[in-house]
Amino acid sequence: MKVITLGEIMLRLCPVERERFVQADRFTAVYGGGEANVAVSLATLGEESVFVTKVPNNELGQAAVNSLRRYGVDTRRIVRGEGRLGIYFLERGASQRPDKVLYDRANSAFSLSDEHEYDWDAIFDGADWLHFTGITPALGERARALTERALKEAKKRGVTVSCDVNYRKKLWTLEEARPVLEHFMQYVDVCITNGSQAEEVFGITPAQEGQEGDIEIARTVLERFHLQTVALTFRRSINADINRIAGMLYQNGTAAFSRWYEIDIVDRIGGGDAFGAALIYALLHGFSPQETIGFAVAANCLKHTVEGDYNLSTAEEICALAHGDGTGRVDR
Amino acid sequence: MKVITLGEIMLRLCPVERERFVQADRFTAVYGGGEANVAVSLATLGEESVFVTKVPNNELGQAAVNSLRRYGVDTRRIVRGEGRLGIYFLERGASQRPDKVLYDRANSAFSLSDEHEYDWDAIFDGADWLHFTGITPALGERARALTERALKEAKKRGVTVSCDVNYRKKLWTLEEARPVLEHFMQYVDVCITNGSQAEEVFGITPAQEGQEGDIEIARTVLERFHLQTVALTFRRSINADINRIAGMLYQNGTAAFSRWYEIDIVDRIGGGDAFGAALIYALLHGFSPQETIGFAVAANCLKHTVEGDYNLSTAEEICALAHGDGTGRVDR
Amino acid sequence: MKVITLGEIMLRLCPVERERFVQADRFTAVYGGGEANVAVSLATLGEESVFVTKVPNNELGQAAVNSLRRYGVDTRRIVRGEGRLGIYFLERGASQRPDKVLYDRANSAFSLSDEHEYDWDAIFDGADWLHFTGITPALGERARALTERALKEAKKRGVTVSCDVNYRKKLWTLEEARPVLEHFMQYVDVCITNGSQAEEVFGITPAQEGQEGDIEIARTVLERFHLQTVALTFRRSINADINRIAGMLYQNGTAAFSRWYEIDIVDRIGGGDAFGAALIYALLHGFSPQETIGFAVAANCLKHTVEGDYNLSTAEEICALAHGDGTGRVDR
Amino acid sequence: MKVITLGEIMLRLCPVERERFVQADRFTAVYGGGEANVAVSLATLGEESVFVTKVPNNELGQAAVNSLRRYGVDTRRIVRGEGRLGIYFLERGASQRPDKVLYDRANSAFSLSDEHEYDWDAIFDGADWLHFTGITPALGERARALTERALKEAKKRGVTVSCDVNYRKKLWTLEEARPVLEHFMQYVDVCITNGSQAEEVFGITPAQEGQEGDIEIARTVLERFHLQTVALTFRRSINADINRIAGMLYQNGTAAFSRWYEIDIVDRIGGGDAFGAALIYALLHGFSPQETIGFAVAANCLKHTVEGDYNLSTAEEICALAHGDGTGRVDR
Amino acid sequence: MKVITLGEIMLRLCPVERERFVQADRFTAVYGGGEANVAVSLATLGEESVFVTKVPNNELGQAAVNSLRRYGVDTRRIVRGEGRLGIYFLERGASQRPDKVLYDRANSAFSLSDEHEYDWDAIFDGADWLHFTGITPALGERARALTERALKEAKKRGVTVSCDVNYRKKLWTLEEARPVLEHFMQYVDVCITNGSQAEEVFGITPAQEGQEGDIEIARTVLERFHLQTVALTFRRSINADINRIAGMLYQNGTAAFSRWYEIDIVDRIGGGDAFGAALIYALLHGFSPQETIGFAVAANCLKHTVEGDYNLSTAEEICALAHGDGTGRVDR
Amino acid sequence: MKVITLGEIMLRLCPVERERFVQADRFTAVYGGGEANVAVSLATLGEESVFVTKVPNNELGQAAVNSLRRYGVDTRRIVRGEGRLGIYFLERGASQRPDKVLYDRANSAFSLSDEHEYDWDAIFDGADWLHFTGITPALGERARALTERALKEAKKRGVTVSCDVNYRKKLWTLEEARPVLEHFMQYVDVCITNGSQAEEVFGITPAQEGQEGDIEIARTVLERFHLQTVALTFRRSINADINRIAGMLYQNGTAAFSRWYEIDIVDRIGGGDAFGAALIYALLHGFSPQETIGFAVAANCLKHTVEGDYNLSTAEEICALAHGDGTGRVDR
Repeated sequence: MKVITLGEIMLRLCPVERERFVQADRFTAVYGGGEANVAVSLATLGEESVFVTKVPNNELGQAAVNSLRRYGVDTRRIVRGEGRLGIYFLERGASQRPDKVLYDRANSAFSLSDEHEYDWDAIFDGADWLHFTGITPALGERARALTERALKEAKKRGVTVSCDVNYRKKLWTLEEARPVLEHFMQYVDVCITNGSQAEEVFGITPAQEGQEGDIEIARTVLERFHLQTVALTFRRSINADINRIAGMLYQNGTAAFSRWYEIDIVDRIGGGDAFGAALIYALLHGFSPQETIGFAVAANCLKHTVEGDYNLSTAEEICALAHGDGTGRVDR
Repeated sequence: MKVITLGEIMLRLCPVERERFVQADRFTAVYGGGEANVAVSLATLGEESVFVTKVPNNELGQAAVNSLRRYGVDTRRIVRGEGRLGIYFLERGASQRPDKVLYDRANSAFSLSDEHEYDWDAIFDGADWLHFTGITPALGERARALTERALKEAKKRGVTVSCDVNYRKKLWTLEEARPVLEHFMQYVDVCITNGSQAEEVFGITPAQEGQEGDIEIARTVLERFHLQTVALTFRRSINADINRIAGMLYQNGTAAFSRWYEIDIVDRIGGGDAFGAALIYALLHGFSPQETIGFAVAANCLKHTVEGDYNLSTAEEICALAHGDGTGRVDR
Repeated sequence: MKVITLGEIMLRLCPVERERFVQADRFTAVYGGGEANVAVSLATLGEESVFVTKVPNNELGQAAVNSLRRYGVDTRRIVRGEGRLGIYFLERGASQRPDKVLYDRANSAFSLSDEHEYDWDAIFDGADWLHFTGITPALGERARALTERALKEAKKRGVTVSCDVNYRKKLWTLEEARPVLEHFMQYVDVCITNGSQAEEVFGITPAQEGQEGDIEIARTVLERFHLQTVALTFRRSINADINRIAGMLYQNGTAAFSRWYEIDIVDRIGGGDAFGAALIYALLHGFSPQETIGFAVAANCLKHTVEGDYNLSTAEEICALAHGDGTGRVDR
Repeated sequence: MKVITLGEIMLRLCPVERERFVQADRFTAVYGGGEANVAVSLATLGEESVFVTKVPNNELGQAAVNSLRRYGVDTRRIVRGEGRLGIYFLERGASQRPDKVLYDRANSAFSLSDEHEYDWDAIFDGADWLHFTGITPALGERARALTERALKEAKKRGVTVSCDVNYRKKLWTLEEARPVLEHFMQYVDVCITNGSQAEEVFGITPAQEGQEGDIEIARTVLERFHLQTVALTFRRSINADINRIAGMLYQNGTAAFSRWYEIDIVDRIGGGDAFGAALIYALLHGFSPQETIGFAVAANCLKHTVEGDYNLSTAEEICALAHGDGTGRVDR
Repeated sequence: MKVITLGEIMLRLCPVERERFVQADRFTAVYGGGEANVAVSLATLGEESVFVTKVPNNELGQAAVNSLRRYGVDTRRIVRGEGRLGIYFLERGASQRPDKVLYDRANSAFSLSDEHEYDWDAIFDGADWLHFTGITPALGERARALTERALKEAKKRGVTVSCDVNYRKKLWTLEEARPVLEHFMQYVDVCITNGSQAEEVFGITPAQEGQEGDIEIARTVLERFHLQTVALTFRRSINADINRIAGMLYQNGTAAFSRWYEIDIVDRIGGGDAFGAALIYALLHGFSPQETIGFAVAANCLKHTVEGDYNLSTAEEICALAHGDGTGRVDR
Repeated sequence: MKVITLGEIMLRLCPVERERFVQADRFTAVYGGGEANVAVSLATLGEESVFVTKVPNNELGQAAVNSLRRYGVDTRRIVRGEGRLGIYFLERGASQRPDKVLYDRANSAFSLSDEHEYDWDAIFDGADWLHFTGITPALGERARALTERALKEAKKRGVTVSCDVNYRKKLWTLEEARPVLEHFMQYVDVCITNGSQAEEVFGITPAQEGQEGDIEIARTVLERFHLQTVALTFRRSINADINRIAGMLYQNGTAAFSRWYEIDIVDRIGGGDAFGAALIYALLHGFSPQETIGFAVAANCLKHTVEGDYNLSTAEEICALAHGDGTGRVDR
């Protein structure tokens, strides 16, 4: 199956070991971004994964492309031109000290790119699915127009559309985000969100607590935006090293809940993207709701154990965790 | 506010990753020492922080000075001359294997320095506070004389004096330490210690257990030495990777207890020094007793997440933890 | 006391930090193997430890030998010749992602070596003990013949023989392993195994659960093979980072159980070998059953905190843990 | 243009910095091999580059494939199956100490692969060129059969064939190599070799010295094997750090000589492959003989400045050197 | 003596070892920039060195400030505010492959800063010298205005002004640069340039070759802009690893030439800045013309052996080279 | 043959890459010292090599011992006790910047050890040769007494004695060194020195220049101290990266000169020790004078290409260079 993802890919710079920014004289460099991460996950799972973006025509742009090719993503639709590559600096937290993200992504080649630079017919040729996140429209007017263009192109071809709401307060205010994201929901079939985003962005406060409340949130989102599927991710942050995660799938008036995982985190970034990719994969492959949410949450869990933005877990590994005990025994 | 700290700064050499000494072919080099750590913390918190010591006039001495300047400490009062820089080797433990400290600090330029080498008037010009620890007098006769000289200079100028008792059994015996430390307490206004030190060094065994016992210890110390303030640190070592810490402040007959933190440790060294610096800061800025101890313990906690001896946490970060939930969520 | 160990030593290649194989562009290189690990442990404990193997006469073979010499193992009986050094690749897991071992050890110089290449008289001159594991006969016909030759040489000289059953499913099937291992048990005095191996390899399913079942397993193994001593290791894998371990010693109809340790793992490989070496040491030195199992399990625990295959813990450190609280306080 | 390369890709392990094998506890891991290096160069130059091999279906095989995808090679024709990935260890020399290569490539999945495992129609669909080296037939009977099959498939489709003679004395003897390589020359259009190989493998000793002798060698090879083009590489090894290189192209009875470069070597491996790829590129693009040899030698030169087996120099960079002064001024 | 430098400080990111950008997954991070480099050199030489810039009020801005403080620069006049820190990526070349600089410095906090944000009285209080380079006015309108303001403030206080012409073609065209730089020359007392800049920027083509031509260039510049002193740097680039450098000082109608150094380069960046700082130092300390140029060129030479932008050579070391033989014997 | 070496082994700490001390936050740790280096070379050459010293009974002492065992040195005669391990810091120079050695070796366990702590009978049992250097008596009174005791023990058993004069100005003055070294020459059979030492220490200024002068120096030393053999090393330091070396052997009134090598240096330390060890080896094995000096200088040359103090070159490698062309071609 062919899945299109559209968004920004950035250079991520992270001090080695647990050094703080003010100590750092070495940075680990990887490339990533919400939709790029989804693209790599899908390619690793064996799907035909096409990532669409614009990168500068310099070595950093090339390195970003190479990072995608390395893991099997189709990068032929990526546009190149003037501009800079967005950067984000990540300070790995520890225990009570939180991870810190410092964005230096303004004026990136992608955020300033124009919808007419992209070859939409080539992009959507044979496509089954389009995925985007709420980060892309947060990047400015042009990125918003680009997002809408992609959504329209998808809809006119009957391509399924999924959206990970992903509200980022460092990029725009809730006041800016709300109307844009609500407007884009008209194109969406599958929505990924969580409780606090549903409340902040869509103003949904469930009357009940616990699983009933979660179901209420999902049902409200689904109904308000006429969706097919809503997936919720749950995260309890014990500290910067230990998180507990789970998920829920809501379809056809029924909710399926996954088990909970307690994770010793290696890399906190990209868990939600791993979840999204695995969800798309499971839905494309006709997994049952229970299997779908189990697979997606297991992928999310495993991502936390992999360095970098990309989830490099295979379908076999994710299944082994979803159906196994997660005890991490040596395989020898 | 201008705070003076006096003591030894050493080169700390620690095998990379978790290697043991007998495996190590690379050492991470940082600089530190009880009072130097306090000096860096105070500079990071925004105070005028003056560190006084003697270093050899070679590149290692210069590097030690540079490490202080880097974080904003005033190093103009540091004396240079013949001799060596003290070294300590640190083997990072793990789980049931403890951290191991191997001192190679004998005959350092500082420990052999003479009180007449220092320009006391320049040092104390405009000073508000003097901090020292029980490590300095443990370094020998000259360091003891130097400490007393500094204490007398402080007292004659009405400068507040704080002492972190910090008994180190690898430097001197209890029999040697007891009379010296008790003698120096006459100059002290604020004393930082803990239960086991109070028992070993000052012979104080509380009649009660729990918080009542802690209050009894603090009150006894305060009354015996006519102090203004006593702060106690609490530590429960689960293993080399996980510790629980808290603290108590005793002033005016009243005790304030902080919350407990369970910490996944990045670097075990310098927590007490971070506590001391934050305590001085809070007292200088007129924090309430409850805020003071909360701030100092949060600083202690955060230090455990920072590599090296120095606590590079800002006042804003410490406040965020003291008033927050410590869940270490990503800030993005 | 002089202890002989016979087996394969391999180059172990492990991606730096927590990188996955598909990310790795740097590997940490150490050398190890079941019996080599026991040999290093015994040398570190102060015994006269002789390791017998065959390595290729190239720089990698030399480096393997050097790694043993470095820690005091007598390597003069090692044969050199044509062939390759076995390699194993280790991907360090994390949390729910298991460690992964990828063997590339086929056709090693050792596995193809002939019993006549070894100087058995020199090897066993003055020997007190021979240790082997179930890995060696798994390496093929020649390695099986070699193992039996060594066992016969030991028996004819009255040397005590210990065996760590160590069934490895990636090397041979249970159908292949069972008759071989059962046949070799006739030479054995001290057997190290665990519950699942006892069931898989020897077909022993205890009627009871818990400690009674463990005792039943040990007694059955001991009686069936006319052994002197049986030691069981217990491991509960919480996840790839956290394991709980303990052990039991069965001798003279009596079982001694150790305490349990919960370990934050630095390196998962070689724990059982550390256990075996410490067990041999304790039996050779006449420790009581309770002290023996306590010492062996403490060694196993400490190995998990040391990088590489080798346990570099001294007898003093192991005793400190066995008799201490395992709280990992800094020693300064 | 579509260029097919067929051969083995190996994991290359090289001690970090200038460490010797017996010192090494860290290896840098890259992937490479004569034909794989040519494939990456061609992809970097912008050609459609298809690499054909067999890798084991484990993570190392995947990592080798990823290394090719990263730089744009088409890896869809790579076969996967049982077996191991060949390894070569490289000890970087210095000054008078030579680089040392230690092969551990016997029994690799590729060397044991069967010609029937490959989809020759898909491989050669639309192909313009096939490149192979003398290393592949050196890997054994099966690899020889596989090579011949590929050559026949190429010839029957009118695909141009180039061969880099590349005799490796650690893989086979001259007696073994001579008849095989001479036999394969019947399929070849473009041959890359050098003076000492021409003498050792083809028994050609020029009557003259200097350029006349070089021309004589090329003419003899060309005429004996009815070739279209012969390219010679020249190398003068000053020491392990400094080499001088040049080249000659012989076509239509005329020789074109390049300039000489004196190189401070970063990585000695893969220079000849970079030369071969650039030669193919230049011939495919109709460069003049003088431009062709200039471009190929400049590519060879630049490869020596790039770490790893692959030449990551762009056509623009190679041209800049071929037409420039090689003074290495900063571009800012 | 108090020297003011004004300019931009950037984060410099350089792949480890000799990796190319497309290979890099680790970057070494240092901070630097033309004027910042001069400031650090002067502080290392023992002068009172004040660096004036604007940095973002985030951790990267703080880290840039810390890098200056570490080496003794007075950073109290640095402004903080909104914006980003400029970045430049440096790919270390080798042999015939040139170093490559990739600027990502547009829209930096400094380049957008306003002259009214700076406290000119505090900056120039007690100042003896102001140094700037042609890079600062290349950063845009605001930076140009800022530069002129600083120059006027200097002039009105009788502060000596030096300028390093430093034309950067990646920042502006010659057409843009020429009028600006010529205009600013009215404020300058001491000008540092080289032959090609003199030709490109000021249109000066000497009638003669060799030293006579160099003297002609210097005299023309000096006379045209009514300068006190002109210094020329000479560089012959053998390749990216080896350069030859020298310099000339022109004052009072007389030229002094230095010796030539052939350098095996460790880090190519910042040599000119080291020259400038040493020149200022020598002029401030009344060195003779011959000693001045010898000292400045020796500083330039030594900088090439130091990693990072900053020259960390002491006056003693520079003198030792200027008066010595440069044979690099071990000092032990 | 059994060779005894006696001296101090130190921890050597060297900043990674080419960092200066004031930049360094990582040090590479190796162990070495003049006589220890000779011991490792001899063990690598296949001799029975016994190193005698005293190390502290802590982990650093153990690590020093392990470094020797790793390469096959017999360490059973090493004494352990109170004290510290000497340290030396090495700043690797580059081009015109010299290597810098910073000693921190005062008060080491060895330098304070007493001759009665050593078991001389065990040390000299079966010994053929004793080697020492002028560094040991430079360490103080006790080390001088220890040296003389060893020399007397050697002489009384008819053991050949070699001495590398090795005057170190950072350890003692010429006035102190001269009488001590002259006194010890009475015990010496084979003396290694060079022209400047011969002049400074022994006051020998040859009347002639060039080879005649060298012969005159050697003859004078030999005759004055009644030696059997004198070896001279020649070094021309082009810069910190490039040296030229050669050597001369003088015996029975005849001099043999080696060829000259120009070396691109990897590690400058230990070349003379490699020379000494190879000289002893060649003399013990009855090489001709010409072969002896050729072998010793080739060993010296190769040491410069090996990181650390130890020369890890095999006899086969040294012979290959001595008889070869030193062009450093890849061996594959």
